[in-house]
Amino acid sequence: MSGRTKFLLDESEMPTQWYNIIPDLPEPPPPPLHPGTKQPVGPDDLAPLFPQALIAQEVSGESYIDIPDEVQDVYRLWRPSPLYRAHRLERALGTPARIYYKYEGVSPVGSHKPNTAVPQAFYNAREGVTKLTTETGAGQWGSALAFACAVFGLECEVWQVRASYDQKPYRKLMMETFGATVHPSPSDLTVSGRAVLAEHPDSTGSLGIAISEAVEMAAADPDTRYALGSVLNHVLLHQTVIGEEALKQFELAGDTPDVIVGCTGGGSNFGGLAFPFLREKLAGRMSPAIRAVEPAACPSLTRGVYAYDFGDTAGLTPLLKMHTLGHGFIPDPIHAGGLRYHGMSPLLSHIYELGLIDAVALPQQECFAAGVRFARAEGIIPAPEPTHALAECVREALRCKETGEEKVILTALCGHAHLDLPAYGAYLGGEMIDHDLPEEEIERALAELPAST
Amino acid sequence: MSGRTKFLLDESEMPTQWYNIIPDLPEPPPPPLHPGTKQPVGPDDLAPLFPQALIAQEVSGESYIDIPDEVQDVYRLWRPSPLYRAHRLERALGTPARIYYKYEGVSPVGSHKPNTAVPQAFYNAREGVTKLTTETGAGQWGSALAFACAVFGLECEVWQVRASYDQKPYRKLMMETFGATVHPSPSDLTVSGRAVLAEHPDSTGSLGIAISEAVEMAAADPDTRYALGSVLNHVLLHQTVIGEEALKQFELAGDTPDVIVGCTGGGSNFGGLAFPFLREKLAGRMSPAIRAVEPAACPSLTRGVYAYDFGDTAGLTPLLKMHTLGHGFIPDPIHAGGLRYHGMSPLLSHIYELGLIDAVALPQQECFAAGVRFARAEGIIPAPEPTHALAECVREALRCKETGEEKVILTALCGHAHLDLPAYGAYLGGEMIDHDLPEEEIERALAELPAST
Repeated sequence: MSGRTKFLLDESEMPTQWYNIIPDLPEPPPPPLHPGTKQPVGPDDLAPLFPQALIAQEVSGESYIDIPDEVQDVYRLWRPSPLYRAHRLERALGTPARIYYKYEGVSPVGSHKPNTAVPQAFYNAREGVTKLTTETGAGQWGSALAFACAVFGLECEVWQVRASYDQKPYRKLMMETFGATVHPSPSDLTVSGRAVLAEHPDSTGSLGIAISEAVEMAAADPDTRYALGSVLNHVLLHQTVIGEEALKQFELAGDTPDVIVGCTGGGSNFGGLAFPFLREKLAGRMSPAIRAVEPAACPSLTRGVYAYDFGDTAGLTPLLKMHTLGHGFIPDPIHAGGLRYHGMSPLLSHIYELGLIDAVALPQQECFAAGVRFARAEGIIPAPEPTHALAECVREALRCKETGEEKVILTALCGHAHLDLPAYGAYLGGEMIDHDLPEEEIERALAELPAST
Repeated sequence: MSGRTKFLLDESEMPTQWYNIIPDLPEPPPPPLHPGTKQPVGPDDLAPLFPQALIAQEVSGESYIDIPDEVQDVYRLWRPSPLYRAHRLERALGTPARIYYKYEGVSPVGSHKPNTAVPQAFYNAREGVTKLTTETGAGQWGSALAFACAVFGLECEVWQVRASYDQKPYRKLMMETFGATVHPSPSDLTVSGRAVLAEHPDSTGSLGIAISEAVEMAAADPDTRYALGSVLNHVLLHQTVIGEEALKQFELAGDTPDVIVGCTGGGSNFGGLAFPFLREKLAGRMSPAIRAVEPAACPSLTRGVYAYDFGDTAGLTPLLKMHTLGHGFIPDPIHAGGLRYHGMSPLLSHIYELGLIDAVALPQQECFAAGVRFARAEGIIPAPEPTHALAECVREALRCKETGEEKVILTALCGHAHLDLPAYGAYLGGEMIDHDLPEEEIERALAELPAST
């Protein structure tokens, strides 16, 4: 027996404010640009897509933003989430490292996504919006928004990447149980979808295409808005409850992280955990290495360029300065659906360019091996996305075994795999392949970047 | 905002003893009998199937049994489990009742089953057993035992009722991720399975048949034992951690339950929550009504007889005095797989005969309607089994709405539905049917009861 397993906070210790890292950075991130004028977009440009409260949060200069009571009331269904000490994994690895994981799988849909879905639905409902549209890949985000819309009485319409729609029917069933309508993307319901289908009738879709469809539908109806599950500043803002809680829980544990690892698709899980720790680091109160882990099959930070690009495939969004593989990039149908996005949060990209975090890309078989190892030791089967963070965590723990260092590692376990078990089946059945991503393929996609700005 | 949502206990408040209700009952339950001699079975009769420690617990006269440190260490991965006040469901129902639910879905496999799987695997490993066999229906029990075997380094072989094996592939994937081997039952690996297949080549199986197969395999190998996920005294004993925690949590809440409802298949979830409260009731310290809820399609308590019967279909087990529909009864393939058992825990049956609890049988559509209502209010999609308890909870809350009574209702939410979502799909798609269970069908199965004892 080796001390405490979980570090729990009382409901009364749940954060009451979100943390906005932008004022604490040495310089602000470059603004989104209007694709026509190449000028920074203003609130009016975004009004067809987002409610005023979220537009204000997107550009806020305040360091802290109050979490509305109504949102806190829903957060309390699962927050504060637990911080675990992974005693059993440590023993299985024989490492002197101390491994902690912050577990977001306790939420209604089993991931960190409701942390932002709930406030997004709340602000939309408060401003009289009656329906939200969105895209989803593996379905974590779509089910989070479906849940949040059920709570605040909004309609919810989801375009799900067809590859996932077909392979992971349980996510669709979860969204429908919460009352949402789900379409496979590309669909024939939108101009964007029909354009893709005309050229590629068998298209299995991409997040970029699904975003185009959801954006198009929202823009066409004055009572409908669009909700995005990652990438944007306000989304990362909402996720900082993860890191704020983890800071308090490390105080309970009497420990301080030396290395923080999280997986990155659009960046919200990683930013949510990392930003409050980065604040402490910028203030000189701690000095952890902070590391983003992405799939080798979709390596926007490690192999993409830092440039203005569209957030979606059809080019309907503002131009975002970010690490991108090009908005036409279609990643291999790897099993970590939430990490298959051509771009990266502009805020996180900026922080990476400032040298405040590092990044690494890992192959998926190594990630699933880490996932199985973790499951058999700790009892939780990790979602495919956080297996990337766990694989890096295992690498770091095994380096400590070599050197004898007693490093403290914190990893973001952003969800469980209950609805992604076929991916584990593929891994255990030996059907999972690590595709090489040829340089030419990246170059081809990058050639389609919008004209230099 | 309406006060606390969750009542959490610290790890240090986790129960360190299981509660054995038998010494507190006005009379002990009738013993299991050897099917040949019709005499009470002794430890030697059970030794081929169970380790000595569990056989001792099965017949123990002690009121409290210490939980080994190694078991507590694993329990701490998810225990103490939360008690919730269902504020949002109360508001949705407009009831003056106060509704609480004890949530066991936080466990590694999403149900209460690991509470007994972990000690069963521990005691077997300590006595040198290298492999456990078991049966499973929907798969909650099989995945719990697979997890527990992974923790203590045992092999695990599971016979899963074919109807569930085919319809719910995710559970099989979970068991395999934890390292278990899974066979559909009836299988051609056992005499019992081959006998069924010879007569019914398309058999979709039953828990009774799967038990026969697992028991047969365990009895044939001296290093293998069998593990049962419900029904027996030691299983209900292990589950009392649920009720012991809930008692402490009600103290935190400053409330006392007037009605306790739980679903019953074999009886372990219900007994686990109810027995510590029943102890308090027998001692005159509180006076809740305690109600078992079973499916109308498999109503062992409400329409079965109280008689000695086999626990399995092939007649390999001792004879158990219990409420039974007859060991040849094959229930409709309803969607609450864990409640499709012909019998009922002998201990719980005895307590029912003593008049200490009551029981009701509900149709499955009403149960799923309650499940959807609960999910949209509270965020957790309940497993099909506990929707039965929730449906009764809704009935009780609506009665309070009529009468204005502010009853305190406690319900056992023994698991989530992540791996049972196709059942919700069937309900939402209008494909779920409430079958009537004709009296003749029950009479036919009861005619096969073993000769009167």
